[in-house]
Amino acid sequence: MPIVQVHILEGRTTEQKREMARRVTDAISETLGASPESIEIMITEMSRNHFAEAGVLRIDKT
Amino acid sequence: MPIVQVHILEGRTTEQKREMARRVTDAISETLGASPESIEIMITEMSRNHFAEAGVLRIDKT
Amino acid sequence: MPIVQVHILEGRTTEQKREMARRVTDAISETLGASPESIEIMITEMSRNHFAEAGVLRIDKT
Amino acid sequence: MPIVQVHILEGRTTEQKREMARRVTDAISETLGASPESIEIMITEMSRNHFAEAGVLRIDKT
Amino acid sequence: MPIVQVHILEGRTTEQKREMARRVTDAISETLGASPESIEIMITEMSRNHFAEAGVLRIDKT
Amino acid sequence: MPIVQVHILEGRTTEQKREMARRVTDAISETLGASPESIEIMITEMSRNHFAEAGVLRIDKT
Repeated sequence: MPIVQVHILEGRTTEQKREMARRVTDAISETLGASPESIEIMITEMSRNHFAEAGVLRIDKT
Repeated sequence: MPIVQVHILEGRTTEQKREMARRVTDAISETLGASPESIEIMITEMSRNHFAEAGVLRIDKT
Repeated sequence: MPIVQVHILEGRTTEQKREMARRVTDAISETLGASPESIEIMITEMSRNHFAEAGVLRIDKT
Repeated sequence: MPIVQVHILEGRTTEQKREMARRVTDAISETLGASPESIEIMITEMSRNHFAEAGVLRIDKT
Repeated sequence: MPIVQVHILEGRTTEQKREMARRVTDAISETLGASPESIEIMITEMSRNHFAEAGVLRIDKT
Repeated sequence: MPIVQVHILEGRTTEQKREMARRVTDAISETLGASPESIEIMITEMSRNHFAEAGVLRIDKT
């Protein structure tokens, strides 16, 4: 704890996720006063047919 | 916001998910007074060896 | 299963949530072919200092 | 309800998950007084490039 | 990791939750081969007007 | 989307959460190439009798 869940659309590289995990951990550690060791991040990738806005699946968005 | 997460067993078609996203968005918009544009839906599919009821994995249910 | 989690901002009435639960259950049942009895809905209310868009807490949005 | 979500790193066998679902259901049923039939467990597997501790993805941990 | 989220209806005592956390941790540790120290449990309590089955809020269930 | 859920122990000030939301949004925007406007953060506070590590509720940790 803190436990962070990040839902993103698929398509990012491992390098982007690596950098994101590092930067989000720093941001949380420095603002909330939590030790970096206590911070866990889970990344969940969504495919474009599993995410909708305004009732429209992302694969159908034109 | 509203942010909706729908956990379902795998096996539905994209057409079913498309229709579900549309109908759930309408339902939430009309009952809660949220604009459709503000409503996001994330669909999470579970495989049958990752869901259990009464302590029994769905793949083992006879 | 299906298990649905709906995150909303606080401020809706019980009557609105009641209607939402009924309508969302119908929408999912009819589009995914799940029995209404199998559908569970969890409503999570967020306060305005616990939700941010574009890095701005909702309480600070002008 | 109770609804349990278990996030684990990938790599466990179905036999381990089967046993886990059975044991966790017993534990919850006996301590909270819920009928086993009312308990649902969702298992979510994370890959090692989707989980970070201390800002370091698990695939990078040496 | 493992990270466990347990959604329950409100009304359990702290003693029940304490016992549940202990037993669920044992169950997961022994079946998945995870060290107890690595297992985190988050308990989320739902009020009866925030949980619905078959489209009916629990407060309305007769 | 990205949608971020941050589980923290209760006790932080609104100023800390404000700063955290701003910094986490920047971190995600800059590393994943998402527009800040598309990033939503939900903060969930846990009380110390609702979080356990190694089977021990945080209120019991000595």
